[in-house]
Amino acid sequence: MALIETPYLLFLGDAPDALAAKVAQGVKDWRPDYAIGQYRMDGCKADMGLQDLDIQAAVEAGCKTLVIGVANRGGVISAAWKTVLIEALNAGLDIASGLHNLLRDEPDLVAAAKANGRQLHDVRIPSVKYPIANGVKRSGKRCLAVGTDCSVGKMYTALCLEKEMLERGMKASFRATGQTGILITGDGVPLDAVIADFMAGSIEYLTPDNDADHWDLIEGQGSLFHVSYSGVTMALVHGGQPDALILCHEPTRDHMRGLPGYKLPSLQALRDIALQLAQVGNPDCQVVGISVNTKGLAEDDAKSYLSGLEAELGLPTTDPFRFGAGPLVDALAKI
Amino acid sequence: MALIETPYLLFLGDAPDALAAKVAQGVKDWRPDYAIGQYRMDGCKADMGLQDLDIQAAVEAGCKTLVIGVANRGGVISAAWKTVLIEALNAGLDIASGLHNLLRDEPDLVAAAKANGRQLHDVRIPSVKYPIANGVKRSGKRCLAVGTDCSVGKMYTALCLEKEMLERGMKASFRATGQTGILITGDGVPLDAVIADFMAGSIEYLTPDNDADHWDLIEGQGSLFHVSYSGVTMALVHGGQPDALILCHEPTRDHMRGLPGYKLPSLQALRDIALQLAQVGNPDCQVVGISVNTKGLAEDDAKSYLSGLEAELGLPTTDPFRFGAGPLVDALAKI
Repeated sequence: MALIETPYLLFLGDAPDALAAKVAQGVKDWRPDYAIGQYRMDGCKADMGLQDLDIQAAVEAGCKTLVIGVANRGGVISAAWKTVLIEALNAGLDIASGLHNLLRDEPDLVAAAKANGRQLHDVRIPSVKYPIANGVKRSGKRCLAVGTDCSVGKMYTALCLEKEMLERGMKASFRATGQTGILITGDGVPLDAVIADFMAGSIEYLTPDNDADHWDLIEGQGSLFHVSYSGVTMALVHGGQPDALILCHEPTRDHMRGLPGYKLPSLQALRDIALQLAQVGNPDCQVVGISVNTKGLAEDDAKSYLSGLEAELGLPTTDPFRFGAGPLVDALAKI
Repeated sequence: MALIETPYLLFLGDAPDALAAKVAQGVKDWRPDYAIGQYRMDGCKADMGLQDLDIQAAVEAGCKTLVIGVANRGGVISAAWKTVLIEALNAGLDIASGLHNLLRDEPDLVAAAKANGRQLHDVRIPSVKYPIANGVKRSGKRCLAVGTDCSVGKMYTALCLEKEMLERGMKASFRATGQTGILITGDGVPLDAVIADFMAGSIEYLTPDNDADHWDLIEGQGSLFHVSYSGVTMALVHGGQPDALILCHEPTRDHMRGLPGYKLPSLQALRDIALQLAQVGNPDCQVVGISVNTKGLAEDDAKSYLSGLEAELGLPTTDPFRFGAGPLVDALAKI
């Protein structure tokens, strides 16, 4: 059972543009069955192309949770939002949010939730007391996306792999480790908010024993080469116990995200160090392919870049969102 | 200014044996100036060889803080302890504790502290809102102890280096990253309790810009090869921005601490991967020596083991606690 009850009413609020509603877009793209309708306030500039439902209509359509699919302006949950959120709680919906401002810190929302017996899900912070990792080998297979940098497409890579595997009739589960992924799928570990000692254990908890032919597709975080967040990445490499690593890259970037003095590593350097570290937890781990976010390249340039990389590193290489995850799933299916 | 006011009255409580009082032993060994006296209850089996002081005598001797230097039995702060602790607060002492049970969770201690305007220092958990690491190069020099495993002597190595450097008139500061180290020195970061996203930033905070010839001697945690805690270690390697790494090892261990299925890595493997990772944050980082905890070996065996390792890896090798930190400080002084 997912942590967050589905299906969802996607709350777009007064989104100033489409980009502000990227959580809602993620749900709609990756869990269309969860996305029954959208709620847009006056002045909303985002549109998921879903039916516009008011709260009562959403309840009648079977929605269980209002998901805040939009970033809030100025870091404040506004009075205008609250009117809608309280109406939703009164009508019997839970609320799920990945905002930095927590729902639970708003007394009026807490009171309305309590009065109606509803849940407020703040996925920004953990709701579980995770164990310390024990390193014991688990059944089933696991694939982890590791990146040359933060925000190079690791979440989309894992979601693309899940989609392709399910379409082929394989057993697969995307395992969310960040707030957007958790809201998309209704469950996961907000790894960046876990206490240091329990990071690897939280990933063991997230990816337990499973069928021998089941794949956990673990959302990566940070990068082993990103000095601000590399510890988080390391916990995924060891807690995830991956059988397979997919290297993720974004080719147009000048420097590491947020670190002007730091160049991106080569894919070879990432491959070598990530594999060596992963083999501490799983000696059979392999690097199986490369996923490139080619959004910044024209289609011809993207294709020649991918084929160049494939020849250079001798690994299946694709932009799974743009050109399909087939080559990567082919490689995983052989493990 | 240290987080915790010194000097200390070391509270040994009803310690069942000397081992239970290892925090007190650490203070006495490494900060003898802080250790003015000890407080022993009936049945106490530990003895630091300090003068026994009651609370009033401790205050008159200039003590500022009662440091709980002993583990509590059964995870409970007993009524017998509380009588002493409340007397200490009433007499004007602060209390510092690294216990898992927090002082702040005991209403009677909180009330007595408040009534007397005293501090309760729970060093188990952070008292600072740490920044996210920015990776900017800092002035001064930093040495980090990295281990083949947990609990191989990284804290003692850093403390030995500090002592030797200070004796030579060098500028040096031990930087505590664990509860025992924090209680010994009165300040530091309880890294295992920091939120994932802020781990590396907490180490940047702990080891700020300093004189060009000043050494921060950073206490290591965990191991890059320990799957439960490697993320914590990684944050030290990147947040610490070390100029020098000291490899730490304990030669009598069968398997990684708490992980029966896991063998210890070779020192060569640790050297290679730790250096490669550290050079992401500081391209000039070097591995300068090896520190071995030879407690489990007879003196002759220890010496031949050390000289064998030194020949094998070509690095200055010693047990700094047993045979002195000289060779390691010689190597650091050349950087």
